Order: sequence, then structure tokens, then C-alpha cells
Amino acid sequence: MRHLRLIPKPKQGELALLTRIRDRAAKVPKRGLRLGIGDDCALVQPKQNEELAVTTDLSIAGRHFRLDWHSPDAVGHRTLARGLSDLAAMGARPLAAFLSLGLPSNLARPKGPQPAWIDRFLDGFLALAEKYDTPLAGGDLAESSLAVADIVLVGAVPRGKALLRCGAKPGDLVYVTGALGGAAAGLAQLDKKARKSRPRSDSTDLNDSLARHLYPQPRIVQGLFLLRRNLATAALDLSDGLSTDLAHLCSESGVGVAIDSASLPIHPAATMQQALHGGEDYELIFTAHPHARLPRAIAGVPISCIGRIVPRRRARTQITLLTAAGSQPLEPAGWEHFS
Amino acid sequence: MRHLRLIPKPKQGELALLTRIRDRAAKVPKRGLRLGIGDDCALVQPKQNEELAVTTDLSIAGRHFRLDWHSPDAVGHRTLARGLSDLAAMGARPLAAFLSLGLPSNLARPKGPQPAWIDRFLDGFLALAEKYDTPLAGGDLAESSLAVADIVLVGAVPRGKALLRCGAKPGDLVYVTGALGGAAAGLAQLDKKARKSRPRSDSTDLNDSLARHLYPQPRIVQGLFLLRRNLATAALDLSDGLSTDLAHLCSESGVGVAIDSASLPIHPAATMQQALHGGEDYELIFTAHPHARLPRAIAGVPISCIGRIVPRRRARTQITLLTAAGSQPLEPAGWEHFS
Repeated sequence: MRHLRLIPKPKQGELALLTRIRDRAAKVPKRGLRLGIGDDCALVQPKQNEELAVTTDLSIAGRHFRLDWHSPDAVGHRTLARGLSDLAAMGARPLAAFLSLGLPSNLARPKGPQPAWIDRFLDGFLALAEKYDTPLAGGDLAESSLAVADIVLVGAVPRGKALLRCGAKPGDLVYVTGALGGAAAGLAQLDKKARKSRPRSDSTDLNDSLARHLYPQPRIVQGLFLLRRNLATAALDLSDGLSTDLAHLCSESGVGVAIDSASLPIHPAATMQQALHGGEDYELIFTAHPHARLPRAIAGVPISCIGRIVPRRRARTQITLLTAAGSQPLEPAGWEHFS
Repeated sequence: MRHLRLIPKPKQGELALLTRIRDRAAKVPKRGLRLGIGDDCALVQPKQNEELAVTTDLSIAGRHFRLDWHSPDAVGHRTLARGLSDLAAMGARPLAAFLSLGLPSNLARPKGPQPAWIDRFLDGFLALAEKYDTPLAGGDLAESSLAVADIVLVGAVPRGKALLRCGAKPGDLVYVTGALGGAAAGLAQLDKKARKSRPRSDSTDLNDSLARHLYPQPRIVQGLFLLRRNLATAALDLSDGLSTDLAHLCSESGVGVAIDSASLPIHPAATMQQALHGGEDYELIFTAHPHARLPRAIAGVPISCIGRIVPRRRARTQITLLTAAGSQPLEPAGWEHFS
């Protein structure tokens, strides 16, 4: 028997919950999805000459979110945003999302007149799904002592055109979308609030940084733009922090990089450290040929040139930070599990 | 910052672990996979006129497996088998697997001279992956107080040909592959062992039932056979138990079903109750036109006719069990979460 149970139980909760999710998910349009929730698998239909980009991201209570810090709709939004951001980094068009949820049973039940945690989670999840035409096509549900959410995104890209991490060449310029460190500044605020220390101020910048942490915006439109115009030689998304993600880029492309600290688009509420090492901004970092003509903004999101790809060095660290005081190696110091 | 951490940490464990997984995964051939572990997404390339089947299954310690009952390689095997079985039920050819793992840090570390739990998990996972030409194409890793594994399988089917749950018609005959209840009998054995009660005997049947629980065999070859020969009008896999899975079939096809208890291929170590309601056999249940000629076995696995599809009734339960004592409604009594 599937779940370590030796005596059969009458059926109630899970099917009712699945039906509720299926009904709510049905409201997002399903272009590339031929069959959604309800069978053994969903069926996804790319166009001719397209291939499929697939990514998974695991979110765990106490690690990626805290039930006492994050509202359920922010957890739902962030869960989906992580996956969409990976598609954006490939220049992929979202086709379908799959969600595996493990939840303590109290999060699946309404609290008196209040909707259940899972319904508010779905509010955040499905609002973002609708914004990016991403139907919820399937997933799994299980009771769990710890809340966990694994998100799977399937997207489509023209064959052979996906933006990869491995295409950066010495001489290419390095760009980022939007601002850096906002999400980290927002998280620091949540931490202060939890420790009941006085907030710095109720400024617009701080509110914006909190929004960037709670409701990050995946750069789907910007990724599609870069792919269609053939502008980027390599791309990835900023999830672990600029220093760590630049190290991934260098390692996959076999290059080094020199970053000009003065040109970093630091979020007004963030410190330089947060901009360099804070994760979860979900901006895109990409490289382009030095003669490529990049717009100043794509769909309202600013594009900043922050440095240049250089030949691979023998040094342990491939990232150099240029400051007014001279140049220094920049060690990857973003997040890593099991460290 | 991604993981609720306010101060950057130096990098060590996760990248080393990822490299180890990537190296081990590289040994499985990658036909339909154009890009595997290492970028923001993997790239999967179906053939022309194919669509993609996608499924996810969440396994949680204490729910779907127990660290004190199941060896790590059995947990790895079972994790992948669940996903492959969903592909089998659609008649899909596996293209790629994605694995999200949340693990307590001690399971990621070697125990003295012993390999780490995660390496033994990968032994079981990758052995089954190799058997079914299923490359591990990506996933996610996180530290977690509770061990969780979410498996994603992507497979290919000729467009419009997938075996669905919704095609059964009154008059169709109902078939199952293999034997029923073996996995439930195996689980009951593990439970007895844990409670230190004396095992019934060390018979071959009991050993086989234990193997069916610990190392279930997904019916990929049988699903592909049914699809290619156009034999099945509907299909699904037996994961939650015959009674519950038959109810899914009835509900999706809008029909009822009459099962002949005398024709059920009950595993020699199993009881009738285990055959009717025990889950995790991962056999296929499918329907076929009454004139369709089914072989007695497909690739060595017996095929048994166990009943017939009937028109939908007004009754709450759509399943009738025919026994020597007469006919009776069969309530779905397999596993359900949040019940």
C-alpha cells in the first residue's frame, strides 16, 4: 500500500482538495497544453521546430520560506516565480507548471471563516500563473509534517536557440536587468521585524525591497526579447546571488569576468554586500557581443552593463571586482546547501 | 537571499554534491535529451509528431518510505519507479527524469568508510534509470529537516495516441498486468519485522512480495506494446490500490465496472483485501474492445482479464464485485491523503 498504511481508509480529503485545485487551475488558458490535471501524465505539445526547457525548484519551510514570516500568497508567488525565472533565463515561453505539495493537514483545512493556507497559497500562485499564461497542468499532493513545494516548469524554445550559460566569450559585455540586492534588503527587513527591532523607516525604497523579496517578477518578457533578437551570447538568472551566479557563468563558459563596481545597479534600499551576494533577485544576467546594440530598457525594466568577460585565469576565483581602490578577486559567497 | 540566510556563507557542500551527481548521471545514455544538468533548464527534444507526457510524484519520509525500514537504494528505486509507472500508463517512452531532493545533512555525508545515504539512494535510482534509458537531466538539492524526494518524468508519445483514462466504453473488457497485492503483502512483512513478530515463513512467495514492495517494476514495455498495437481504449497504473484506481477510471470515462473476483490474479503471498485495496503494485490496468485479441503475456508479464465495463449507474459506487456469493458494491478503499 502506497503510504505505509496497513489498513485501508475511507476516502475523503485528498480528492476533494484535488478537485478544488483542478477547478481553480482551469481558469488559466491552456495553449500548449493538450491534457491537464486528471490523468497519469499531462500532455504538452510544443510547436514544430521547438524543443522543451524543463526545470524544477524545491521550496522547504524553514529554508526557503517561513510560515511565520511569509504570507501564504507570497509563498505561492515565490514558488512559481523561481521556476518561471529559470525559463526566462533560457529565453523560453512558459507552457505548463506542475506543483508537488507536501503539507501538514492543518494547512489544508479552512481556519473557521478564513480560507485554508493552501487556498491563499493558490491565490498567489495562480495570479502569477495567469500573468504569464502558465496553466497548472498537474502535480502531487501529500500529507507531510513539514511544508514543502516542488515546482516544475515546462517551456518552449525554438530548436537550438535557447540562451545557455556556456556561450560567453572574452570581450563580451556583461549585463543585468533591473536592480540588485533589493530582495536581500527586503529579507533583512523581515528579519528585523521578527526580532522586533525598529524598522529603519517606512520609506518607499524599503517597501519596494520588501515587494522584491515577497513578489519577485520573473523576467520572461526580457528573456524572450533577448532570444528573438539574438542578442545574448549567454544568460542565467540571479537566484543564488551575483557572485555565485557569475561563478556558474564563468565555469560553464570557461571564462573569467571583470565587474565594475561603480556600474552595478544597486537597489536604493540595499547595501553593496547585498547587491554582490544577496540572492533571489531573479533578475537576468547575460552577456552580449561588444558590438551588439542593447536597449536601455526592455519592457520597462532597465538594462545595465556591469562588466566584461575576460580570458580564463589560473586563479581560483574567476571574478574580478574593479573599484576606485583598485581590483580585487570576488569570491562567490551566495547561498549553498550542505556547506 | 534565497534561503532565509542573512550573512553569506562560503561555498562547499552543495556544488561538490551536484558535481558527484552530475558525473554519475552522465553514465546513462541521453537520446532525446539535448542538454542535461548544469544550466537553468534541461532541453528535451521530442521527435516530429510526438507530444510530451509529464508527471510528478512526491515521496516523503514517514509517509511514502521510512528511513528505518527501507534501504537507501530501495528508496531511490521506488522514487523513480513511481514516475516511470505513470509514463507506462500513457504508453510513453521515457526521455528524461528530474529529481528534487531535500535531505538532512547527515544523509548527504559519508558515514566513516560507508558511502553516504544519498550515494546509495543514487545506486538504486540510477540502476533503474539505466534499465529504462532514462537520463537524470536535472533537479534541485536542498537541506531539509525531513527527507523528501520529488520525481519528474518526461516521456514522448506519438501525437494523439497516448493511453488516457477517459476512453473506456461499456462492453470493453478490463485487464491487469502481473499480480495484485504483492507490494501490500511485502509492506505487511516489513511491518511485522519492525514489530519483531515472527515472520510467517521464509517462503519464496514472501520474498517475492517483499521485492515487489521494495523494487517494483514499472510496466514501460507493456505500455509501449499496448500503444503501438492500438490495443487499449483506456489505461492507468495501479498506485493507490485496485478499488481506488478503478474508481478513477470510472470517473474519467463516465462508466461503471464489474469485476469478477475469481479472475483476479492475486499474488500468492497476498490476501484478497490486499489485492483489492493495496497500492504500489505499479501494474497497469487497461480496457480493450471485446473483440481485441490480447496476448496472454507481454514481455513475460501475464495479462489477465478481470472484468467488464458497464454503463454508469446512479449509485454512489461504480464498481461491482462479482463473487460466488453474488454481487456487491466495491467501495474505493485505497490510500488518500488528508482523509
